[in-house]
Amino acid sequence: MIDVIVSGDVIKAVTKAMVALVSEARFHFDSENMHSRAVDPANVAMVIVKVPSSSFEVYKVDEEKVIGVDVNRVFDISKSIKGGELVELKVEDDTTLRIKFGSVQYSVALIDPSAIRKEPRVPNLELPAKIVLDAGEFKKAIGAADKISDHVVFRSDETGFYIEAEGDVDHIEFHMGEAELIEFNRGEARSMFSIEYLKEFIKIAGSGDVLTIYLGNNYPVRLVFDVADGKVNVEYILAPRIEAE
Amino acid sequence: MIDVIVSGDVIKAVTKAMVALVSEARFHFDSENMHSRAVDPANVAMVIVKVPSSSFEVYKVDEEKVIGVDVNRVFDISKSIKGGELVELKVEDDTTLRIKFGSVQYSVALIDPSAIRKEPRVPNLELPAKIVLDAGEFKKAIGAADKISDHVVFRSDETGFYIEAEGDVDHIEFHMGEAELIEFNRGEARSMFSIEYLKEFIKIAGSGDVLTIYLGNNYPVRLVFDVADGKVNVEYILAPRIEAE
Amino acid sequence: MIDVIVSGDVIKAVTKAMVALVSEARFHFDSENMHSRAVDPANVAMVIVKVPSSSFEVYKVDEEKVIGVDVNRVFDISKSIKGGELVELKVEDDTTLRIKFGSVQYSVALIDPSAIRKEPRVPNLELPAKIVLDAGEFKKAIGAADKISDHVVFRSDETGFYIEAEGDVDHIEFHMGEAELIEFNRGEARSMFSIEYLKEFIKIAGSGDVLTIYLGNNYPVRLVFDVADGKVNVEYILAPRIEAE
Repeated sequence: MIDVIVSGDVIKAVTKAMVALVSEARFHFDSENMHSRAVDPANVAMVIVKVPSSSFEVYKVDEEKVIGVDVNRVFDISKSIKGGELVELKVEDDTTLRIKFGSVQYSVALIDPSAIRKEPRVPNLELPAKIVLDAGEFKKAIGAADKISDHVVFRSDETGFYIEAEGDVDHIEFHMGEAELIEFNRGEARSMFSIEYLKEFIKIAGSGDVLTIYLGNNYPVRLVFDVADGKVNVEYILAPRIEAE
Repeated sequence: MIDVIVSGDVIKAVTKAMVALVSEARFHFDSENMHSRAVDPANVAMVIVKVPSSSFEVYKVDEEKVIGVDVNRVFDISKSIKGGELVELKVEDDTTLRIKFGSVQYSVALIDPSAIRKEPRVPNLELPAKIVLDAGEFKKAIGAADKISDHVVFRSDETGFYIEAEGDVDHIEFHMGEAELIEFNRGEARSMFSIEYLKEFIKIAGSGDVLTIYLGNNYPVRLVFDVADGKVNVEYILAPRIEAE
Repeated sequence: MIDVIVSGDVIKAVTKAMVALVSEARFHFDSENMHSRAVDPANVAMVIVKVPSSSFEVYKVDEEKVIGVDVNRVFDISKSIKGGELVELKVEDDTTLRIKFGSVQYSVALIDPSAIRKEPRVPNLELPAKIVLDAGEFKKAIGAADKISDHVVFRSDETGFYIEAEGDVDHIEFHMGEAELIEFNRGEARSMFSIEYLKEFIKIAGSGDVLTIYLGNNYPVRLVFDVADGKVNVEYILAPRIEAE
């Protein structure tokens, strides 16, 4: 049996993070945390969500348990939850997730976990550059790049971190030097990515959230977001696009 | 001649209440109040709006008078009025309603009242359950139910008041016990209603407004809203839907 | 070379003023100000924008210079600039306009000024009535008139300034007397104008901005807006429509 109580912003963040890539997912509840992992249908990106048990107000989980969740449905429900409102999640059998807040209780049918695509293995990536910045700044840069192109270059060298996009006649360059970054290892790296995916990822974050980027050379990037006041950890791994020379 | 001054929120509430069901209506001005009554074209619901003369800043009505109003049109105009702004309504002959606020004066053509569908008789209903609650809570419950079904069950017994909806695979239950209700007679009753209508009704109310529900068994429900700081009384009577066993 | 720094609200006001009529325009930078002038493709309206050098934080212009700008593009970019944010505009050669704010730098391709329609001569107009009012009030009046008609009459006499519109069955009259106007010369004048254009013009102004109207008889009107805290002067000249008797 699962019976947990958590603030609404955690539910909002977790479901928003997952719906960026999938409509159904397996959620694991074990003694240490709730976690989920999924790959989008095109196999271009992976999402890994973790909520430690300490982020819950109440966390009662009898035994390790996996449930299959229609994340679109719960995301939809989460829109009527206020950020600071407490929400009870309850699974008594394998068929129903009860979501209770205020005077309202939803009963959402669970999905047989075996009917959901198997979780991917997390790849082992060697990524030379580590860049830590305010997620709101990243969000602005991606939003701006999206207006002129469908892909961006992430670039890091000793002068700082760059996001660049080329339009038909225009160019946009976002640059943060070491002084403006929260943390920076001056690693050299450069890869190109699809804005289509990045646009979805940034929906979960805002100004004040911290984003850690691990960047390589023509290699997947890891984007690690701390959201909901640090109660939720969301990692996206995104495959690069090949830069035409 | 009619010459009255009233705050904008009254105009907004009255027109919003009427447009939920009809596009034209007769308005009666007599010595005690302004009132209107109408049934929707499908004969499923009735609206009864009353504004006592004491809700007006100025209420000059020479003799009992009935005017035919294009409520869609006045509702549209009311959107550019601020809630606290004073509005003058003036009918000097039977052809024109003048609506004046700030520096703007609208002249709206009246409709011959005899060309508008005759007002219905208010049915005499014996309804065992009386439930008084915050209209904002009711609004949230209907909004939530609307996401999964097109009808809801209202249910009352000694344990409190329930609103329930069944989706294809999901279920939602809203429950307020006696302690959470403003007033409750513990009456037993149960009826099913179309959300399509309820959605329109709740547009007039918000958190802080008081809603009184009179509920019977497979019988019409009376929803009585006190809105615009109690200056406007809006009652909806809605026919039940037959529950398939 | 052009190298200027200005607050975001100036960029927003200037581009919004121009896009109301054209998608490309020539901008002149001389020792005293930045200015631009254009006529819409239908030759019905003219816009004249002036930003004195004193409205800039930094204004470095080596020699008088004309650049051709895709104003739609810069208007689009200006949406991601905050009103109070400082923006650097830089033109080093004749091909590129650099727009820098925060960590973002846009490079926008310039247009050969000779490829843009030649600026019109400003007509010499004798306009008997001068009316100065809050631009927000004007905006409300045009917004209201737009709901019932596609043209309005501006009228001025010793009793004040009027904006009138006739719908199929409705009428709206906006009136401000001398006491409500900021300045008024009691001039007699009356002309009719297309709301389609006025709707575009009012987008640049809000409550608190000052609008000066110079009105004649069946003659073009001059609408002079002081926006962005007086840092930007925008003048629209609009040809009248012929009133059918």
